[in-house]
Amino acid sequence: MIKAKIIGATGYGGVGIVELLLRHPEVEITALVAKDEVGKPLSHFYPHLSGFCDMMVHPADSEAAQAPADVVFFSTPDGIGMQLAQVELDRGAKLIDYSGDFRFNNPEDYAEYARRIGRDTTHKAPELLARSVYGLPELGLGTAADADIVGNPGCFAVSCLLGLAPAAKHALVDPQTLICDCKTGVSGAGKKPNAAFHFPSRYDNMNAYKLAGHQHVCEVELNLEKLAGHPMPVTFTAQVVPATRGILSCLYGTLASGISAEQVQEAYAEFYRNQSFVRLYTRDDSVGTAQVRGSNYCNVVVDVDERTRRLRVVSHIDNLMKGQAGSALQNMNLLFGFPETQALDFPGSIP
Amino acid sequence: MIKAKIIGATGYGGVGIVELLLRHPEVEITALVAKDEVGKPLSHFYPHLSGFCDMMVHPADSEAAQAPADVVFFSTPDGIGMQLAQVELDRGAKLIDYSGDFRFNNPEDYAEYARRIGRDTTHKAPELLARSVYGLPELGLGTAADADIVGNPGCFAVSCLLGLAPAAKHALVDPQTLICDCKTGVSGAGKKPNAAFHFPSRYDNMNAYKLAGHQHVCEVELNLEKLAGHPMPVTFTAQVVPATRGILSCLYGTLASGISAEQVQEAYAEFYRNQSFVRLYTRDDSVGTAQVRGSNYCNVVVDVDERTRRLRVVSHIDNLMKGQAGSALQNMNLLFGFPETQALDFPGSIP
Amino acid sequence: MIKAKIIGATGYGGVGIVELLLRHPEVEITALVAKDEVGKPLSHFYPHLSGFCDMMVHPADSEAAQAPADVVFFSTPDGIGMQLAQVELDRGAKLIDYSGDFRFNNPEDYAEYARRIGRDTTHKAPELLARSVYGLPELGLGTAADADIVGNPGCFAVSCLLGLAPAAKHALVDPQTLICDCKTGVSGAGKKPNAAFHFPSRYDNMNAYKLAGHQHVCEVELNLEKLAGHPMPVTFTAQVVPATRGILSCLYGTLASGISAEQVQEAYAEFYRNQSFVRLYTRDDSVGTAQVRGSNYCNVVVDVDERTRRLRVVSHIDNLMKGQAGSALQNMNLLFGFPETQALDFPGSIP
Amino acid sequence: MIKAKIIGATGYGGVGIVELLLRHPEVEITALVAKDEVGKPLSHFYPHLSGFCDMMVHPADSEAAQAPADVVFFSTPDGIGMQLAQVELDRGAKLIDYSGDFRFNNPEDYAEYARRIGRDTTHKAPELLARSVYGLPELGLGTAADADIVGNPGCFAVSCLLGLAPAAKHALVDPQTLICDCKTGVSGAGKKPNAAFHFPSRYDNMNAYKLAGHQHVCEVELNLEKLAGHPMPVTFTAQVVPATRGILSCLYGTLASGISAEQVQEAYAEFYRNQSFVRLYTRDDSVGTAQVRGSNYCNVVVDVDERTRRLRVVSHIDNLMKGQAGSALQNMNLLFGFPETQALDFPGSIP
Repeated sequence: MIKAKIIGATGYGGVGIVELLLRHPEVEITALVAKDEVGKPLSHFYPHLSGFCDMMVHPADSEAAQAPADVVFFSTPDGIGMQLAQVELDRGAKLIDYSGDFRFNNPEDYAEYARRIGRDTTHKAPELLARSVYGLPELGLGTAADADIVGNPGCFAVSCLLGLAPAAKHALVDPQTLICDCKTGVSGAGKKPNAAFHFPSRYDNMNAYKLAGHQHVCEVELNLEKLAGHPMPVTFTAQVVPATRGILSCLYGTLASGISAEQVQEAYAEFYRNQSFVRLYTRDDSVGTAQVRGSNYCNVVVDVDERTRRLRVVSHIDNLMKGQAGSALQNMNLLFGFPETQALDFPGSIP
Repeated sequence: MIKAKIIGATGYGGVGIVELLLRHPEVEITALVAKDEVGKPLSHFYPHLSGFCDMMVHPADSEAAQAPADVVFFSTPDGIGMQLAQVELDRGAKLIDYSGDFRFNNPEDYAEYARRIGRDTTHKAPELLARSVYGLPELGLGTAADADIVGNPGCFAVSCLLGLAPAAKHALVDPQTLICDCKTGVSGAGKKPNAAFHFPSRYDNMNAYKLAGHQHVCEVELNLEKLAGHPMPVTFTAQVVPATRGILSCLYGTLASGISAEQVQEAYAEFYRNQSFVRLYTRDDSVGTAQVRGSNYCNVVVDVDERTRRLRVVSHIDNLMKGQAGSALQNMNLLFGFPETQALDFPGSIP
Repeated sequence: MIKAKIIGATGYGGVGIVELLLRHPEVEITALVAKDEVGKPLSHFYPHLSGFCDMMVHPADSEAAQAPADVVFFSTPDGIGMQLAQVELDRGAKLIDYSGDFRFNNPEDYAEYARRIGRDTTHKAPELLARSVYGLPELGLGTAADADIVGNPGCFAVSCLLGLAPAAKHALVDPQTLICDCKTGVSGAGKKPNAAFHFPSRYDNMNAYKLAGHQHVCEVELNLEKLAGHPMPVTFTAQVVPATRGILSCLYGTLASGISAEQVQEAYAEFYRNQSFVRLYTRDDSVGTAQVRGSNYCNVVVDVDERTRRLRVVSHIDNLMKGQAGSALQNMNLLFGFPETQALDFPGSIP
Repeated sequence: MIKAKIIGATGYGGVGIVELLLRHPEVEITALVAKDEVGKPLSHFYPHLSGFCDMMVHPADSEAAQAPADVVFFSTPDGIGMQLAQVELDRGAKLIDYSGDFRFNNPEDYAEYARRIGRDTTHKAPELLARSVYGLPELGLGTAADADIVGNPGCFAVSCLLGLAPAAKHALVDPQTLICDCKTGVSGAGKKPNAAFHFPSRYDNMNAYKLAGHQHVCEVELNLEKLAGHPMPVTFTAQVVPATRGILSCLYGTLASGISAEQVQEAYAEFYRNQSFVRLYTRDDSVGTAQVRGSNYCNVVVDVDERTRRLRVVSHIDNLMKGQAGSALQNMNLLFGFPETQALDFPGSIP
């Protein structure tokens, strides 16, 4: 039985990991920490947890928030995890950070990320970067089992990378032709109300946003480059639609010379042969984001438009599960040697 | 480990009980039966179950559908369960029927129900009625533990009865003043597409329906009468709103002479003191159907409008859980002596 | 051609009246005034109006906001209109106020309203109350034609009063038995984002609110009393569902002794014989709020539950049209002697 | 005053043109024709039209359906218009067909279209093709003013062509690099209920469909080729999201050598300088499909991703307006020499 602390417990990412940890037989939640919504039980802020998680939520500077834990989840914005990481490591914890703080294993990559999104390019804990791993184990680029810190991947990045990793690894497409057209439900923007996500503004509405550059592009390109051995720049378009959960990403690249549709299908099948959370489909299957809602699965339709010789992959995840808390729990399982699917082996529900 | 057969496995009620049984350590699903969607695995019709329930769905006349089971769920329309019940009982099964077939313990009550909804008033298996129980154990009117057959309650009826039972039992209101104003999400109408629930017709739309009489009224009135010892007729209005899951029922009755708001609160608290799935709230609490979505709970706001001396109860359930498959599993637990909350002790998820 | 000024132009009520005035051949919008969203064209805040209304929005203290107009719409919260009314009247304007400021024709009634909602019970312009009229002309209690100021009715109040007025006028029901169970879409809460109406919190969610007392109850009871000649207290329950536009109100009262279902239908038909914006239906008709979305109509299903001898009326409006800007324009037409339906004679659109 | 007949009057396309014609001072609807929903007034099937269009709907073989009209709208599937066109022309009508029957001006292009979608490649009225025009006048490829028959464009095609026409015309992009990633609301699939658009299946769900080839691709490619002077094949992905109205299309192409972002903006501005229904935006503007909902506008965000040197255009229409009935009315105006924007110069409404 390990002890878990959750920092940022009252956001969607926090309550999401709480819901999952309640299913996990090897974990006990021992501390809930938040910034504003404190001094009351979590079930006050989330009444569905009444009887399930009635623990008090504490402010970061409280004694309760300082107690050591075996695993600390940072469901916090960029810049928080890197400040608190060393302290928690010293208390004996392993860390899972939802932000960009530990998604890059060296100061140079972090600086590039920070530069693109307009943050200070100097990492606050550069010495810890070597102890961190990017938390998308399906890529085969390292696993939490060998790390103390996991940079939990961005939701859009998960959908793009799981859709394009085999293409990058096996040189299926011309590296200069990648386009990621990504649609998300509103929960990806978090719990804080704003004008764009006010119900009357959002129902029956779709729009693209952050055309100047989304923060997840950097980790997509970096990991594709690691898989391919050379740069693979992507044009990335984030869009939001009137759904709550789900990301639907359409991923495009021109087939490399000599690559056939059969080779594409084989490469994807091979790449994901031993992965529990990726399911492959073809254009003849009927899949949508509803089929992954509430679960940790990524459903990937692998397709080739023969007429234009273009690879087209349609990737489906629940942005709050495989795109956030589900991946976090999967990473926790790997950090501690639990079965990778423990407390994640359930299908969601329909309708 | 008991064996479960599900008849009507491909409707919402069928897939709902499958999802729940997959969580239950004491139950193995051994047969899935349906009318039209047969000859393929359940996961073909419900891809989210891929890897979780890939069992073949069989037609009713197949050999596989005849195999004995310990429990048979009839997720079928009125009239099916009463025809097949004896055969399944003879094979050693206990039965849970989602329709009105076994919601009435004697032929007279059934006849009244059948008359109101325009069906043949003669029950096809009258001798079995005495072996059946109405499956809402919180009413204290009998429990599945003493029965072979459970008439699983109607979704609207669950919301009304849990909201009004204490008032009926403790004579809190004038028996001639009951009004049930009930709003449901669309899934209550089942899986079959129709014009009224076509997405473009339903979004941004609300309407009342079946003003001439809804089939659930009868079981509401019958059980209130059992609790009160005298008739309690209700005016019942069914409405549908653009949600998928959830029933919100506003229940009204004029306070009986001499009854105070405090007595009302006490009576409700006492009535539900030992019930796992009913949570009580007051007008100051913030609750909605989202807080019971995906779980077996009924959240009940108990309120008195002092100005008009009227009891007002606001009852919240997930129509597919406490209103259908959740109650079915709860009843199965009682039928077999498992803990009442087994495989139902989870909170749903937010958002 | 009259000149119109809109105060509170950037809220839903403001943009709603702008959209309608753009259709009106006799009106020219000459000033748009707001509190925060100022200094840019209205089409900046509402891009759909680009090319249709590119007028600048001015702060209240600007010179442009002081220019005289023939009609001033106060799409403002309680307390604003009563402060500014005299100034605008002095400039020669007639006024339409969306708040509760002028819904009560005398200081006593206003005080009762203010008391119930916790505001200062002293009206700031009591001398103007006699020049005002309650802006629901279908009630037959006075019309804007004889007034300088219109208190535009509350959205819930419109739906309740149009549904119950004939019953009050013709003594169809026991005056102590009225219940108004009202469901609204989210736009009724206005444009300002908050946690309850954040898309992920609101989708697939329904809840009751303000159980302690909604501000519209007072005007419902007051006008019913005027029609009936005696008090008619109502139990009122406001609810919100995941729609954007629409109010569905179910209205109940026990039939008075000797009143038949036929008499009920006749009384309603008679009451609304010459009204353009009320359409009557029976339980056999299929109507929902979608059928009034975007239009100024109120669809009223008149029904009697014979078994319980209870009148049941189901009233449907678009809360932003007949519930707000549509009524405002109708009142403007009456104030100035234009045809009552001018610029309002359109049906909305489906789907 | 011209007379209009609508064939297929009870579908979304039919009721859409009825709603618009009701606004048009120069048109009188004289016949409504449908296949199944006949023998009752249109307002029976669409109650919001009660008092606005209570004309009877007739079957195609009735006398009323044969009466001559000045304009006939075929809101019918592929294959109907081409059979009835000559008869209606002989009666003196001009025709607007919503299907693919007259979107191609010569038998060869039609055959290619028919082949791709698996229909008989022989046009049934080849001699009429020369009298027809593709009904997207903004392309500058011919206008209804010079034709007797208009092939009203497909909804996806409108969004793609308006987004890419300037790029094709001015050689802004490499012709082998076009990708159209298109998201539609559910109403695009029409009024007939099916499993995929049943409310509970569709809410909180997104999916791609027809990956093997959508019928609108052909007209997109054909018109781009006319503009460019050479083939421009597109990879096209149709997707459906839980909205009712709206198409959001993201359109991509690699910038041609030497083309700058400034040149792109200038080319678009020049191309649409005199067009009433196209509005141009940049990445800094906040636009979504809600801003064109209910109106005939196409809002086009023109953007260049400098890092990957890729043109990215985001195109927004209401699929039932500029994507269907709105374009049909615009084409009717051109056919008869009315002002192009007549009865279309309104902005929609928010929220």
